[in-house]
Amino acid sequence: MTTVGVGLIGHAFMGRAHSQAWRNVGAFFEPELTPLMTALAGRSAERTARAARALGWASAETDWKALLRRDDVQLIDICTPGDGHAEIAIAALDAGKHVLCEKPLANTVAEAEAMTDAADRAAAKGIVAMVGFNYRRIPAIALARNLVAQGRLGTVRHIRAQYLQDWLTDPEAPWTWRMDRERAGSGALGDIGAHIVDAAQFITGDTLTEVSGTLHTFTGTRPHPDGRKPVTVDDSAIFTARTAGGALATFEATRLATGRKNALRIEISGTTGALAFDLEALNELWLLDDHDTTAGFRRILVTEPDHPYAGAWWPPGHLLGYEHTFTHQAADLLNAIANRSAPSPSFADGLQVQRVLAAVQQSAAAQSTWTPIR
Amino acid sequence: MTTVGVGLIGHAFMGRAHSQAWRNVGAFFEPELTPLMTALAGRSAERTARAARALGWASAETDWKALLRRDDVQLIDICTPGDGHAEIAIAALDAGKHVLCEKPLANTVAEAEAMTDAADRAAAKGIVAMVGFNYRRIPAIALARNLVAQGRLGTVRHIRAQYLQDWLTDPEAPWTWRMDRERAGSGALGDIGAHIVDAAQFITGDTLTEVSGTLHTFTGTRPHPDGRKPVTVDDSAIFTARTAGGALATFEATRLATGRKNALRIEISGTTGALAFDLEALNELWLLDDHDTTAGFRRILVTEPDHPYAGAWWPPGHLLGYEHTFTHQAADLLNAIANRSAPSPSFADGLQVQRVLAAVQQSAAAQSTWTPIR
Amino acid sequence: MTTVGVGLIGHAFMGRAHSQAWRNVGAFFEPELTPLMTALAGRSAERTARAARALGWASAETDWKALLRRDDVQLIDICTPGDGHAEIAIAALDAGKHVLCEKPLANTVAEAEAMTDAADRAAAKGIVAMVGFNYRRIPAIALARNLVAQGRLGTVRHIRAQYLQDWLTDPEAPWTWRMDRERAGSGALGDIGAHIVDAAQFITGDTLTEVSGTLHTFTGTRPHPDGRKPVTVDDSAIFTARTAGGALATFEATRLATGRKNALRIEISGTTGALAFDLEALNELWLLDDHDTTAGFRRILVTEPDHPYAGAWWPPGHLLGYEHTFTHQAADLLNAIANRSAPSPSFADGLQVQRVLAAVQQSAAAQSTWTPIR
Amino acid sequence: MTTVGVGLIGHAFMGRAHSQAWRNVGAFFEPELTPLMTALAGRSAERTARAARALGWASAETDWKALLRRDDVQLIDICTPGDGHAEIAIAALDAGKHVLCEKPLANTVAEAEAMTDAADRAAAKGIVAMVGFNYRRIPAIALARNLVAQGRLGTVRHIRAQYLQDWLTDPEAPWTWRMDRERAGSGALGDIGAHIVDAAQFITGDTLTEVSGTLHTFTGTRPHPDGRKPVTVDDSAIFTARTAGGALATFEATRLATGRKNALRIEISGTTGALAFDLEALNELWLLDDHDTTAGFRRILVTEPDHPYAGAWWPPGHLLGYEHTFTHQAADLLNAIANRSAPSPSFADGLQVQRVLAAVQQSAAAQSTWTPIR
Repeated sequence: MTTVGVGLIGHAFMGRAHSQAWRNVGAFFEPELTPLMTALAGRSAERTARAARALGWASAETDWKALLRRDDVQLIDICTPGDGHAEIAIAALDAGKHVLCEKPLANTVAEAEAMTDAADRAAAKGIVAMVGFNYRRIPAIALARNLVAQGRLGTVRHIRAQYLQDWLTDPEAPWTWRMDRERAGSGALGDIGAHIVDAAQFITGDTLTEVSGTLHTFTGTRPHPDGRKPVTVDDSAIFTARTAGGALATFEATRLATGRKNALRIEISGTTGALAFDLEALNELWLLDDHDTTAGFRRILVTEPDHPYAGAWWPPGHLLGYEHTFTHQAADLLNAIANRSAPSPSFADGLQVQRVLAAVQQSAAAQSTWTPIR
Repeated sequence: MTTVGVGLIGHAFMGRAHSQAWRNVGAFFEPELTPLMTALAGRSAERTARAARALGWASAETDWKALLRRDDVQLIDICTPGDGHAEIAIAALDAGKHVLCEKPLANTVAEAEAMTDAADRAAAKGIVAMVGFNYRRIPAIALARNLVAQGRLGTVRHIRAQYLQDWLTDPEAPWTWRMDRERAGSGALGDIGAHIVDAAQFITGDTLTEVSGTLHTFTGTRPHPDGRKPVTVDDSAIFTARTAGGALATFEATRLATGRKNALRIEISGTTGALAFDLEALNELWLLDDHDTTAGFRRILVTEPDHPYAGAWWPPGHLLGYEHTFTHQAADLLNAIANRSAPSPSFADGLQVQRVLAAVQQSAAAQSTWTPIR
Repeated sequence: MTTVGVGLIGHAFMGRAHSQAWRNVGAFFEPELTPLMTALAGRSAERTARAARALGWASAETDWKALLRRDDVQLIDICTPGDGHAEIAIAALDAGKHVLCEKPLANTVAEAEAMTDAADRAAAKGIVAMVGFNYRRIPAIALARNLVAQGRLGTVRHIRAQYLQDWLTDPEAPWTWRMDRERAGSGALGDIGAHIVDAAQFITGDTLTEVSGTLHTFTGTRPHPDGRKPVTVDDSAIFTARTAGGALATFEATRLATGRKNALRIEISGTTGALAFDLEALNELWLLDDHDTTAGFRRILVTEPDHPYAGAWWPPGHLLGYEHTFTHQAADLLNAIANRSAPSPSFADGLQVQRVLAAVQQSAAAQSTWTPIR
Repeated sequence: MTTVGVGLIGHAFMGRAHSQAWRNVGAFFEPELTPLMTALAGRSAERTARAARALGWASAETDWKALLRRDDVQLIDICTPGDGHAEIAIAALDAGKHVLCEKPLANTVAEAEAMTDAADRAAAKGIVAMVGFNYRRIPAIALARNLVAQGRLGTVRHIRAQYLQDWLTDPEAPWTWRMDRERAGSGALGDIGAHIVDAAQFITGDTLTEVSGTLHTFTGTRPHPDGRKPVTVDDSAIFTARTAGGALATFEATRLATGRKNALRIEISGTTGALAFDLEALNELWLLDDHDTTAGFRRILVTEPDHPYAGAWWPPGHLLGYEHTFTHQAADLLNAIANRSAPSPSFADGLQVQRVLAAVQQSAAAQSTWTPIR
């Protein structure tokens, strides 16, 4: 068995989640490559060293570029804010490193295009680039995709997707970098709207072709130690869409859905079946595909040995959590590298989501007029 | 105690539901006027007579105009398709009869305006006109409105409303008059979209001011004994809206939501609270308005003596059904007539909903551009 | 079509519910006999006359025996407390009147036996006697029975049944006749425990053969205008049982389940399937009977045309309420009378439930020792 | 910061779960002692070595006694079947090692007593012994206990607890050591019944004082490579109980609850409030403790920073899974060792549960007669 040295950039929320994946993937999956937790990069030497110790990384760096120069690092895992993705990912790929990049792929379509170009160049050399839409690796979501692909729903007619959080409901909630267009690209749209766009397309295997959208900022300034700072991104994004397959879709991404903490909800209606999912009950998938006297949505507890990913963990009925998605992602990525197979989701997939987000912004700026993707 | 003679026009689905209300209102409520089930009007003499017997009406007429001429009829209850509403309601009001008219008020804004004018004229003479948005009388919906009015939700930020049915999912489901623009005015939009527009405005006490919408017909022709007939109305309507109070709203009304039989779902997010309702569980209202360690949406079983309407029926925990809304409507209407008080919802309320529907159609015809109401 | 004159005794909670049934059964079902709401009997002349008017009865009597003497009354509907059931029912049957008697059939096994004997005598003369376990007529419960009978669950292994109410949680809740052993026979056991025993046996088609039980009174005296009065019945009954078919069952009936208003919950586990029901969501039946990748409990909304009773009412997805059970009961009783067929549940069924309750009391008095039914 | 060397015995289901805890506790909690994954003991040299590599243990042993002799091991973690617990735990404690022992503490009361004696002896020397009722560390369960302790429920009246699994529903499910009384002590009773007894007592802070119980084996023999082998333990255990605080409790533990995979359900009814929990939705706690117009059970998503354990992980709304309980257990144990504080649950707690199980067996053998605990 061979190994791959991982260099992780960032040790905040996403960095901790990815570390958890690298630490545990070998105990549950038997990936064809064994990951070594080689180095963690962060800006503060002291904080990065402490994080490396706590999270299990063998060394620490204060310059991400150092990772690219290290021979013992073959995979760069990018967990920084979106404004840094393009520079790092392109440099890493060009340096011959495999790349895992958190979503959204970039803050702009142009950046995402450049990154996808770099991924294409790298692919020719057997280098793999994956974007981190981790929710694809929720067993219920992966099962949902399989069921649609098997035709259990017939032709998809409707997608209704919401990503509801509430951490900005309070007008006095503090300003963070996520409210800064320069750093974050957009607000609810890119942060959580990207997830529902990807989930909708992933589950249905269909592609959004045009959107009609609205962005709104309910609270224009927020408190900061330096005084109130302007919020330059959207609090909420609502949009409708049409798909290549002829479905109608509605999307809502908001940070003001009081009482909803992390409610990524998606419901798909097809001509012969339907399914529903809620991230706040992520071990469950609801499916309807019968039409006789006892038809009804059934609650599948997606913890059985024959469910995607679930069999690697615990016996039936023993729930998985949020973080398991990252472990699944790590396992799939390691196998893709080992097999030199195309990773999923690819940078091209991330670019396509970026184009949807850009079209929503464009439509919102044009009175919500229908706007083609691309 | 005095009485009011009721003349009902129509004995299909809505006629049966209204009959149930007139038959039972006196046993549970103590309305200030006692309704007499005086006459039922329908087109077929034989079928109308049989329906009158089954439903408890004392006489039958084959011409609705006969009801207007009868001195023993003081209240006309209109349960015909929408294309007949304007003529009947205006004639009845002008003849000095109180009117209860099923929703949507009319098939066009022009008709609804003429009806509202007639209602205004009649009001000056103490004559009452009410439109039948019966869902306002679901105890959970009425309680929801009270809670918003009490400020339990703070400022409303989001409305997400869906009315999901599935009876047209099958492309071979037969053609009915509801698919004919001449008779029905529109499809899902007017039939069930009208309900969620009214419910959203009723619960929040807020008013939609502009919409961006899309209408879609998935199945263009449907089987009929005379051969396939064209479907000239929408199967599905999706639209977003802004309100006078500054909220963002999303609406979806569809007849192709496989497995959803009658799912009028509405969720309101405010700055300090939220609530959620689903007509498929109509005795429940979900409320969140606390923010401490034990905060969570709570399931209020709206069957307590201090809940709207519920106390008139059974002990706590004994569920009410769909039809009870009509009995509540009858009780409120009888009291409005007795007290010469303004009925709610008024024809003006019905007209406003009609204008929303018209704006959705206009927006849909203009690439989903934001379109003001009126 | 012929008619049957109904004489109702009692106009409190049950009397109102039964009146609702007689008033509406003809509008939804087409029973082979038309019921006439001939007379209402109560103790107070004034209150009975007023109730008769409100509830739709043509006349009022202050002595139930007068009903037995009236030729225009052919059916006696007994809605009095349990201590009066035996005398009235036996006299009515012996007078050649059909009888509908509220549950529990009687306060003692001896009374129930005498009543069953009277029913047997009457049956020989074409007279029908039914006991009012109305929950058998909930569409979801009737469907559940059908599914078990079809073998969808395989062999039943477990029954877990609870009837949870909370109106005696407060130690200061006032004393009523329901807390008096003389009037009520027992407390939670006979009032609501009877319902879960009947429902369990009805759904499974199986019979309890022995029980091990405990009765408990948490609050020994309760306030009354005349001072605190002793509570001589149980607040709560918990018991386990074995069935003829080899299943194990657990039962809990309590009036101290805080926050549960009317939660009759029953879950049946069989070798190949399972089902679950909760009266607080009475339009739903949960069924599991598949065992592949998408197995799960499915929520059947029991409002479809091919569901028991449901087709007579409204379109799919339009909920029924508590009171509809009484209308279904009336329809079935009228048809049984018309067809001279054996009514279900019969007095013998009611007697069997009474024997279960007696065995629970006997076991409770003997340290919860297993006690055979009869 | 100092460290503690851990020696784990067993690498099947529980061994994997405990390994996950030792591997990750440092990344999320900051325990006052750092655990070192020093050695794994198992019977097969080859399988143990492979497991040690996969799970992150630094060395492997084929004799658990070797762990007791190693100076670099200070904590023995026992994940073997119940018949080995007593010998290992007593030897380890007497050798001056801290002990974490999986539940149930032992297969008999006598063994559990001897173990508790050993724990008492060890405690005098600052040695800690904890039994692994991991569900106490579910955030929702820990929160439930806090709420009861705060008096939010008033006086507890009812406990209803079920642990429902279905892996023995099929009569042809294969024989395993869990069906052998010699190895497992009992069946559903000790395996999952122990969990609901502990959870009930932990949440309420109350103690069972007597039980009335029944054990049942539906399938007497099961297939094994050597031919059908007898099942010498119970498939299902149902029992009722009284508590020191005056509550009535019902318990059901079964392996034949078709469709229920891991449904540890517990509902507590108090004089002023109630709560409900289901392990199949382990991030949720349902609480009712208000009594006004908007009273209802509320769904607390137990993922907030101020919820027990939850703040150490992810932002609100990001779910935890089954395995997190073991990490919480490890953190608490490490702190107990560091602080020389009494561990919870102690071996005495485990002994008390064992006595409850023994009393159930005794009652079951005596016609379900009420039997005191001890």
